[in-house]
Amino acid sequence: MKVTFQIEGGSPVQIECNAGDNLLELARRANVAIDAPCSGNGSCGKCRVQLVEGQLESLKSRHITDEEYEVGWRLSCSSKVVGDCTVFVPDIASAYQSRMKTADLSSPEEVAIFDHAQKALRESGIVFENRFQALSLEMDAPTPEDTMPDNERLTWAIQAQLGDVAVDIPYAVMVRLAHTLREHDFKVTVKGERRGDRFFCMEICGPEDTDVVGCAIDIGTTTVSMVLVDLTSGRILAKGSSGNGQIRYGADVINRIIEQGRPGGKKKLQDAIVKETLTPILANLCKSAKISARSILRLSVGANTTMNHLLLGVDAQSVRMDPYVPSFFSWEGLLAGDLKLPANPLAPVVIAPNIGSYVGGDITAGTLASGIWDKDEMSLFIDLGTNGEIVFGNRDFLMSCACSAGPAFEGGDISCGMRATDGAMEAVTLDKDTMEPTMEIVGEPGQKCVGICGSGIIDIISELYRCGIINAKGLFVREGRRVKRDAHGMGRFVLAFPEESETGREVSINEVDIDNFIRAKGAIFSAIDTLLRAVDMTVDMIDHVYVAGGIGSGINMRNAVNIGMLPDVEIEKFSYIGNSSLTGSYAMVVSDGAIAKCAEVAANMTYLELSTHPGYMDSFVAACFIPHTDRSLFPSSVQEG
Amino acid sequence: MKVTFQIEGGSPVQIECNAGDNLLELARRANVAIDAPCSGNGSCGKCRVQLVEGQLESLKSRHITDEEYEVGWRLSCSSKVVGDCTVFVPDIASAYQSRMKTADLSSPEEVAIFDHAQKALRESGIVFENRFQALSLEMDAPTPEDTMPDNERLTWAIQAQLGDVAVDIPYAVMVRLAHTLREHDFKVTVKGERRGDRFFCMEICGPEDTDVVGCAIDIGTTTVSMVLVDLTSGRILAKGSSGNGQIRYGADVINRIIEQGRPGGKKKLQDAIVKETLTPILANLCKSAKISARSILRLSVGANTTMNHLLLGVDAQSVRMDPYVPSFFSWEGLLAGDLKLPANPLAPVVIAPNIGSYVGGDITAGTLASGIWDKDEMSLFIDLGTNGEIVFGNRDFLMSCACSAGPAFEGGDISCGMRATDGAMEAVTLDKDTMEPTMEIVGEPGQKCVGICGSGIIDIISELYRCGIINAKGLFVREGRRVKRDAHGMGRFVLAFPEESETGREVSINEVDIDNFIRAKGAIFSAIDTLLRAVDMTVDMIDHVYVAGGIGSGINMRNAVNIGMLPDVEIEKFSYIGNSSLTGSYAMVVSDGAIAKCAEVAANMTYLELSTHPGYMDSFVAACFIPHTDRSLFPSSVQEG
Repeated sequence: MKVTFQIEGGSPVQIECNAGDNLLELARRANVAIDAPCSGNGSCGKCRVQLVEGQLESLKSRHITDEEYEVGWRLSCSSKVVGDCTVFVPDIASAYQSRMKTADLSSPEEVAIFDHAQKALRESGIVFENRFQALSLEMDAPTPEDTMPDNERLTWAIQAQLGDVAVDIPYAVMVRLAHTLREHDFKVTVKGERRGDRFFCMEICGPEDTDVVGCAIDIGTTTVSMVLVDLTSGRILAKGSSGNGQIRYGADVINRIIEQGRPGGKKKLQDAIVKETLTPILANLCKSAKISARSILRLSVGANTTMNHLLLGVDAQSVRMDPYVPSFFSWEGLLAGDLKLPANPLAPVVIAPNIGSYVGGDITAGTLASGIWDKDEMSLFIDLGTNGEIVFGNRDFLMSCACSAGPAFEGGDISCGMRATDGAMEAVTLDKDTMEPTMEIVGEPGQKCVGICGSGIIDIISELYRCGIINAKGLFVREGRRVKRDAHGMGRFVLAFPEESETGREVSINEVDIDNFIRAKGAIFSAIDTLLRAVDMTVDMIDHVYVAGGIGSGINMRNAVNIGMLPDVEIEKFSYIGNSSLTGSYAMVVSDGAIAKCAEVAANMTYLELSTHPGYMDSFVAACFIPHTDRSLFPSSVQEG
Repeated sequence: MKVTFQIEGGSPVQIECNAGDNLLELARRANVAIDAPCSGNGSCGKCRVQLVEGQLESLKSRHITDEEYEVGWRLSCSSKVVGDCTVFVPDIASAYQSRMKTADLSSPEEVAIFDHAQKALRESGIVFENRFQALSLEMDAPTPEDTMPDNERLTWAIQAQLGDVAVDIPYAVMVRLAHTLREHDFKVTVKGERRGDRFFCMEICGPEDTDVVGCAIDIGTTTVSMVLVDLTSGRILAKGSSGNGQIRYGADVINRIIEQGRPGGKKKLQDAIVKETLTPILANLCKSAKISARSILRLSVGANTTMNHLLLGVDAQSVRMDPYVPSFFSWEGLLAGDLKLPANPLAPVVIAPNIGSYVGGDITAGTLASGIWDKDEMSLFIDLGTNGEIVFGNRDFLMSCACSAGPAFEGGDISCGMRATDGAMEAVTLDKDTMEPTMEIVGEPGQKCVGICGSGIIDIISELYRCGIINAKGLFVREGRRVKRDAHGMGRFVLAFPEESETGREVSINEVDIDNFIRAKGAIFSAIDTLLRAVDMTVDMIDHVYVAGGIGSGINMRNAVNIGMLPDVEIEKFSYIGNSSLTGSYAMVVSDGAIAKCAEVAANMTYLELSTHPGYMDSFVAACFIPHTDRSLFPSSVQEG
């Protein structure tokens, strides 16, 4: 049997399948992009499609109203194929666009943060230069008197510009040389890399194309972000992001490693990130920047250790199994062609070095971007992602550890969670008496609420706690118009009634959401706590706190402290530094010096394995309260009584 | 509709096709090997298949007897598909074997010639060493106390053996590292290339596999030969040859270049040599040598300029068009993976340098093998192939030119021509009075005649001329039992009547065959003549004549002189040096020094373009007689009157 996907704004896609196949998985297999941040467990309600013809066997979801169900709307993750059918997949183009709009660096605030980080790196002495260049060459055509063959002619022309260099012409250029020279009357552009006293050709094309482009990639467990960069000016040409397609093999790294160990697993997991995630974004970015994929001459990747192994198709079993020794920390030698990425196949892919099984290149790149390696003061760097990673130290030492926080900070694992796109509630205050919310919604003025993004979740939990609506365990202890309970007695707080929301569906946060979040913030705080203890330091010795991650610039640090997520230091010491892995990757793709510096940072960083560290579990259990079982750690946390 | 090929000793192969499709081309498309040295023009009669079911529209051929026709035998080149049908393809396995048996280096004589050439190269100071090696490594497995990641562990182990080298681990090795180390308890072999102060890993495998193998390739316009070589000892592990699959796009280089210029032509011609010719031979050689394809760490190619361009898929139009400037003469940078050859994808493919549009790497490699670059005496080096190439000179200068001889020397273009395999008449004398032949047939004693190979053709024409059976124009002028004429009066000489032959078919040589051959030998001699004149020298100044090519060690030099093919010098001055392109390729794959020397030889060689050289055409016309219009050039040529 087969399923036809009618993609809004695109061509239909058909795929052969069997009865019982999961519709979301089919869509992934068919390379049809459907948003599913919760990894297909039915909790996020993002993967909506509309049945046009035929039947599906679908679980009823609270994300689909009766009226919507009536006209065919289903969650693809909760639908099984029972026969031939056709489904409508809404607005992929605009979904991509909205993703791109909400990508890191999409808001003026994030761009400012990004620019500030780059400026700081320059001030730290990192030179933003690289060895890639485009040469505009004009040659004479061969004549009976001038019978130099094409490759020697090209070599001479390059040497006329660069002086006494050896010129390497690889097959990919050689095979197109004769044709390209003649097509453009011997006036061409050659792009390549200066390698000491050699020039390595990477591309030959017409004279008008002189683009020399890099691509910086941040591969998160949940979200992937990319920027295309002009390697000459450092200017950002395009940016985009999307969910990590591996999510259907597990929301966390452990499940994905297990999946990779099954027969065919290495290829499945690699395809999910390379073919299904990176390739479509990259192709889109090239299109929007109007550059040819072959103009991309270097890529850089900031990703955690597991993501790096899965990306390469390298066996990651040793990452999760005693003695937790991965296949590599740092490794040079990857080419875009090895992964069949839509870029110049000869383009090196720089992988930010990992330093442990659970502190990876995203953190070394992020640490590079944070600048803490250049300071005398003691800094705490916290990357809030599916995994939370912490680095503490200064120019003399750097100590790191990691914990599993889950996707709560990125809007996953939360029933009305979403990324910080249009309609996301990103900040809220509650009137203590009436419990009425005052919300900030991402988007144009008048935008109604669709869901709650990471910073909004921190705010609402903090406000619920401050107003005494929930207790230290996150359970509802006040009643009111916006406090509802379901048949099982589970409480929830309604931020937007159906008539107030954009979608006609209620936006709320319930006790399960709050519990999920408390575990996430507890993991983060206990990791910070354990790391500080390991170096025999205390919270009051922290001079700076840099918070990074997809949670967004809207994060209210005071509220994050209030609920015991971040350490209770003066609020002025906090900075949000955006997607620092992407910022670091950007620096590395543009700057040879940044690559060297990142390697140095990694070499100087010590890794603390929390899972085997005495005291970590106790610290975690103690941190799973609002703000903490030991309230003395959070003197400024308030619950107005 | 479809055709099913029932391959003797193999699995049937089916291919979709259209009415009117040529059966031989279909076979090529379906990768079904059918011998067709005449390039499918119906003259060689080698491409016999037997119709089992359905119909074919076939031209009647003198190569198929009525009885054979009755039971379904057809020439595949002369058959068109008219509907579904099944054809039997005889004994591909044994056909391949017989090809391998008849490969260069298959006879003790050829091996002796080959060994002599290698010995001479060593004596000329060429060191038979290369930088490829297999390292047997034993490592400790990781423990909680020894948490070095896999790639660093490997690097240390390599450095423990080789000292202070940088180790490059490319993706192909990295991706298999974790798994291979653990599969073999951290005892592995790493194969790679020493590059100055670096070691470049190319393969990781179990400890028992330590093969370090090279592959030397001679790509002729008509025939392709290969040897697998142990790169450590220089020992030949396997050898094989077959027809060049490009032959269906033309027997000569010009037609193939034209074909390459058509849409999709670059890929078609490249596939014909890479996928259809080199790949099956190479896979066969690996199987017979019991080595893994990934053990092949270097390849070398001796091929003419056009073959080199077509091999690479590089536009060859400029080779045949004014000003005859090819895309490259020499080029480094090709990897086996670029061509998807069944070898280590990282293995460099060394291409013997071309020096002109029509003097290619087969000639520079052959010149290297001939040793004439190391002598004081004046030597003439003649490579008899589809193209004839001539080099003249000594250690002080080398001058070269080329002419188009056609496939006559390899048994093509001759009605009963065949390669020097079992049943080939390779030498003959005639009784002047009775005209009865005394033949030497390749094979076991008692082997009956099947056809005539190159050396046999020289002999029979020389003998026919000597006995006054043909005149200087190659026309029959005596009658007798063995001299027959067809309905159009065309004469032929019967070497074996049907009842005397192996196949029950007559083996003979006719006036068209003789005319084809005279043109071929005329081209060769006039090229020699023109080259000598260009350097202002004469035949008597020649100290050595080295004859190379697939014509075989059976060549009777005296007869070749007698018919005016080779210059009339003392018979002691002639040496047959076999397939010198393959010999030179062998030297280059084993010896880094040979690669350098070949480049030096190429750099010192001057190229004379005959097609535009005044006097060449006149010389050619004068040479198209037996022995020549100017008999004074051949004082020792005899016609017993």
